[in-house]
Amino acid sequence: MNKLKMVPLQNIDIKDSFWDRYVGLVKDVLIPYQWDILNDKLDDVETSHCIKNFKIAAGMETGEFYGAVFQDSDLAKWIEAASYSLAVHPDKELENTIDEVVDLIEAAQGEDGYINTYFTIHDKNLRFTNLREGHELYCAGHFMEAAVAYYRATGKDKLLRIMKRFADLICEEFSSTKNSKGYPGHQEVEIGLYKMYEVTGEEKYLKQAKMFLDRRGEQPNYFLEEVKKPNFKQIFDEFKNYDPSYSQSHLPVREQKTAEGHAVRAVYMYSAMADVGVEYDDKALLNACKSLWDNMVKKRMYITGSIGSSGLLERFTTDYDLPNNSNYSETCASIGLALFGRRMAQITRESKYYDVVERALYNTVLSGISMDGKSFFYVNPLEVWPDNCIPRTSKEHIKPIRQKWFGVACCPPNIARTLASLGEYIYFAEDNAIWVNLFISNKAKFTICDQEVALDMKTKFPYEGHTRIVLNSEASVRGKIYLRIPDYVKKYKILVDGTAIESLQFMGGYCVLELDMNQQTIDIYFDLTPRFVRANPLVKEDIGKVAIMKGPLVYCLEEIDNEANLPAYYIDTSSNLQEYYDNELLGGTVVVKCEGKKVTQEGWNADTLYSEQKIALEKKTLTFIPYPYWGNRKSGEMLVWVKEMQ
Amino acid sequence: MNKLKMVPLQNIDIKDSFWDRYVGLVKDVLIPYQWDILNDKLDDVETSHCIKNFKIAAGMETGEFYGAVFQDSDLAKWIEAASYSLAVHPDKELENTIDEVVDLIEAAQGEDGYINTYFTIHDKNLRFTNLREGHELYCAGHFMEAAVAYYRATGKDKLLRIMKRFADLICEEFSSTKNSKGYPGHQEVEIGLYKMYEVTGEEKYLKQAKMFLDRRGEQPNYFLEEVKKPNFKQIFDEFKNYDPSYSQSHLPVREQKTAEGHAVRAVYMYSAMADVGVEYDDKALLNACKSLWDNMVKKRMYITGSIGSSGLLERFTTDYDLPNNSNYSETCASIGLALFGRRMAQITRESKYYDVVERALYNTVLSGISMDGKSFFYVNPLEVWPDNCIPRTSKEHIKPIRQKWFGVACCPPNIARTLASLGEYIYFAEDNAIWVNLFISNKAKFTICDQEVALDMKTKFPYEGHTRIVLNSEASVRGKIYLRIPDYVKKYKILVDGTAIESLQFMGGYCVLELDMNQQTIDIYFDLTPRFVRANPLVKEDIGKVAIMKGPLVYCLEEIDNEANLPAYYIDTSSNLQEYYDNELLGGTVVVKCEGKKVTQEGWNADTLYSEQKIALEKKTLTFIPYPYWGNRKSGEMLVWVKEMQ
Repeated sequence: MNKLKMVPLQNIDIKDSFWDRYVGLVKDVLIPYQWDILNDKLDDVETSHCIKNFKIAAGMETGEFYGAVFQDSDLAKWIEAASYSLAVHPDKELENTIDEVVDLIEAAQGEDGYINTYFTIHDKNLRFTNLREGHELYCAGHFMEAAVAYYRATGKDKLLRIMKRFADLICEEFSSTKNSKGYPGHQEVEIGLYKMYEVTGEEKYLKQAKMFLDRRGEQPNYFLEEVKKPNFKQIFDEFKNYDPSYSQSHLPVREQKTAEGHAVRAVYMYSAMADVGVEYDDKALLNACKSLWDNMVKKRMYITGSIGSSGLLERFTTDYDLPNNSNYSETCASIGLALFGRRMAQITRESKYYDVVERALYNTVLSGISMDGKSFFYVNPLEVWPDNCIPRTSKEHIKPIRQKWFGVACCPPNIARTLASLGEYIYFAEDNAIWVNLFISNKAKFTICDQEVALDMKTKFPYEGHTRIVLNSEASVRGKIYLRIPDYVKKYKILVDGTAIESLQFMGGYCVLELDMNQQTIDIYFDLTPRFVRANPLVKEDIGKVAIMKGPLVYCLEEIDNEANLPAYYIDTSSNLQEYYDNELLGGTVVVKCEGKKVTQEGWNADTLYSEQKIALEKKTLTFIPYPYWGNRKSGEMLVWVKEMQ
Repeated sequence: MNKLKMVPLQNIDIKDSFWDRYVGLVKDVLIPYQWDILNDKLDDVETSHCIKNFKIAAGMETGEFYGAVFQDSDLAKWIEAASYSLAVHPDKELENTIDEVVDLIEAAQGEDGYINTYFTIHDKNLRFTNLREGHELYCAGHFMEAAVAYYRATGKDKLLRIMKRFADLICEEFSSTKNSKGYPGHQEVEIGLYKMYEVTGEEKYLKQAKMFLDRRGEQPNYFLEEVKKPNFKQIFDEFKNYDPSYSQSHLPVREQKTAEGHAVRAVYMYSAMADVGVEYDDKALLNACKSLWDNMVKKRMYITGSIGSSGLLERFTTDYDLPNNSNYSETCASIGLALFGRRMAQITRESKYYDVVERALYNTVLSGISMDGKSFFYVNPLEVWPDNCIPRTSKEHIKPIRQKWFGVACCPPNIARTLASLGEYIYFAEDNAIWVNLFISNKAKFTICDQEVALDMKTKFPYEGHTRIVLNSEASVRGKIYLRIPDYVKKYKILVDGTAIESLQFMGGYCVLELDMNQQTIDIYFDLTPRFVRANPLVKEDIGKVAIMKGPLVYCLEEIDNEANLPAYYIDTSSNLQEYYDNELLGGTVVVKCEGKKVTQEGWNADTLYSEQKIALEKKTLTFIPYPYWGNRKSGEMLVWVKEMQ
């Protein structure tokens, strides 16, 4: 199968009024800050011990392993993020730091290629004996991604060679003649192996990724059998009553139709299924991808592009079950959703996948990080009341303020690598075509029909609807531009060199322009007026409620801009939404206001819990800010779905 | 202090159209059925092993302990329930069964008086080394209650003597010179010791109960210290990050102002505080009772008289935090709330306590048991959607159908003992007065001014508002009748011998009649028209919603009487509530209907999750049944708080 190509990060230079505040953090804050954390140089955050674990495993220091069983992956994701940054902003010092840590990884690598500090330090004889909890293959996958990223950014192949040795060991250990039933308890290595295959051309890596997918869901279930072996050693208490659907191993992957279990595991697996499905032209695998995507985004996804309705086990539940104040909606799961969606768009050339990718990136991925880049949400609720976010209760996973660093620190470096690679989300390319998926100001270079084409995109999206794309090439090049028309854009126009195009061509939700790429200007005007959005009435939690969106951005009420007790507000959806750009607020943002009412305390005193007293309403103006910006001022209530006056 | 006296169960014979279907189950179903379970004679319920544990501990059989660490308490509560039943319905066979099991308990008792099969079989050397989890004192308390109940019912004192030996051991072990810091991790023994003091007159039992209360909350916290001892052995994983407020040991009990931690532990402790507070005329203790009561019922209690907002750890959270579909609201906690409230009414002579006792009994205690007496709810949600009650998710504790028997089986025998002792809730007595708290048809005997007075109460409460009380005595006796006027009764009249009393006297919410108890007829007419009730708008989960009550009964929607997707209904509160008695439905009940609307699926297809589509409403009639009756037909949705058209 022929899928659309990614454009190398080196070729994309982002300078965007909306994204710069986050992307700009990567190089200056996230990478140095997270490096300090990995090295335990910061006093006021949870100990990472990550680098120290590698030093102990390498025999350079003494001590005990500390941290989660998947602690190594924090370093892997950091290298991956730093590599993406290097691709765009070469930096000798950072490169040296990475080279040194690559030496450390090599030193910690076993004779036979094995890398995992938890097992190396802790339980050397138990490696690969607890696949369901051990996370060795998960960490391996992240290091493979890091190795590929670093190689692509710098051309240096030392980490790649290190990871080839480990990948070779994995292929040997999990070959069809040795451990022929095993597969990872947390999917990720399938993605890593696929990328290793992409850069090395080694087909066995692709084959191994496919084998892991093929084995998953075989009966008897590997993870239920594994625990019966004499050398099995449990790591997590909460895995006691293991349900195979937790790791999507309840059914063969090609037979899975609904998104089940741990949300991050799920979307990482679906991404790998898309990778492998395309390579083998495996229709059953790709059809499963489509079914799973549809089930997820049409029945189990929040308006913010987040997934995982259950706090317990961070998992999917059932169709239309989308509680707003007790969900998990992990940042990493939205990152995985974006990774999966991007692959599906590459394969199918349908823009609908990008409607979801964009929703996830603009809302949940960004809400996962504070504006200063130093604190993070794992969990992204749509309704928060700080008073009831109490440790050791059902809402203990909901945090009303972002945390500095976590014991389980998967999200922060995952956000870093996503922001660092944002460029990869903007375009796809073909030999004779450029696909525009996102509207972000940047300058990019393409090779179209063997000619270099420069593309300059300028936009104030999502606050303003106008995007100008200027194409330039030395010589005349006839090619195609595919412009994604987002699902929420109901009115738009497109001008080429100042002339409105009357009869537009479409393919899969993309508007297709065929033109000469030598000095062309394309102006796109989207109507991004804020709008009221409702949920399907089958979503019980949202019945009678309305949300506000502007383009892909979900808006929310924060207590600081309104009054306490946000669920007491009603929106009058017959009134007009007012929007204006506030230069001061939250570093500059479009604020949306609308009219409504609020239930008052009239007739109620604090000691009356139940009464026949009627409810009194008073008129109020409601002030909304973009959801990703919530929680960047003082702690208070937040609400996305607001009651609608009937 | 002078508190109102309880009336012995022997003196009260209930025959009531509302209660008989439940009370009648005690003798014929609950006691034999639960006895079979304790003896593992039923195949289709979870193994109890309770009697078997006693046989093993007594050396009569071999084997391992099986069940929860507090498994013994199931037998204790069964004996207590059976004793209450015997008090009203003498039954030789049942008495023989109890006598035999008392012999078994004696056989399982240690030389020094110790009784606990878990530790005796399992960890003999570890007794009293893990008070926070061990439940030995909890089980002891329940056996003390059982011993007192059996003695009061039959005059037989063997079990009482057995428990005296154990109580003596406890007083010795936890004296001020031996383990002078220890107190139970789950309160209950304080209640047991107090009852032992009541029947034996042994003051040291009262003193020990007080000491346990006095020690609780001392710094450093006993439970945090205990785990540091070399012989401490953890029993429950989930106790790892122990927070003293879980067992109300975060503060000295007299300084506690808000209801915190595990709800059952809390209300059992508050009950003991009331018992001890009265005996010692301990103002600080009684004031704490009042503060805790007020906080609980004015800010942390569901309309159904249930408590415990958090599923995780079955605990209180914060003021006005009352989620309806993820709460714990344990049946046992409402039983404890009723026990506490009854004590407070005895002490203060204020009827407001009984408004809550009645609410708990009529709603949550009864919802805890099926109409056939064979299945039970632990958890009593106010909103259920069976599809999302999924194991291993945040809603796994919510069951859409009652369970036959639980691994942790505290609620079923607790309901049995509560129903068996319902008579104890109806009256209080003084030398010259009768206090009427509940309106339940029964015949009772009192001794008023040394004369026997017979009381015959006839009522169809809560379905009809008329109650007739006929008093009779051999000779003329002048005395007082205190009639509780429930808080929800806004209109009423009272007739004595057919004559309306114009200027009624009141005391603490009771209407006081002074009269000759020789052939008097009192007719009470309460207006029990169904009414709309709202929650304080500070209760975020209930804003914009309304509930329906009739007398103390909360009503609910069930899917079977309406249509699926109950949260899509809106009530028109300007329309009238219609009520009628349906002879067939649920064994006969008053049904309430009202007009409203329902959000339709018009304009939505199953694959559209979010859209600008407006909501369409269509007219509907809503059908409500009493909350305690929900879940007695086929599994479906249930809803108490329904949206109100604004």
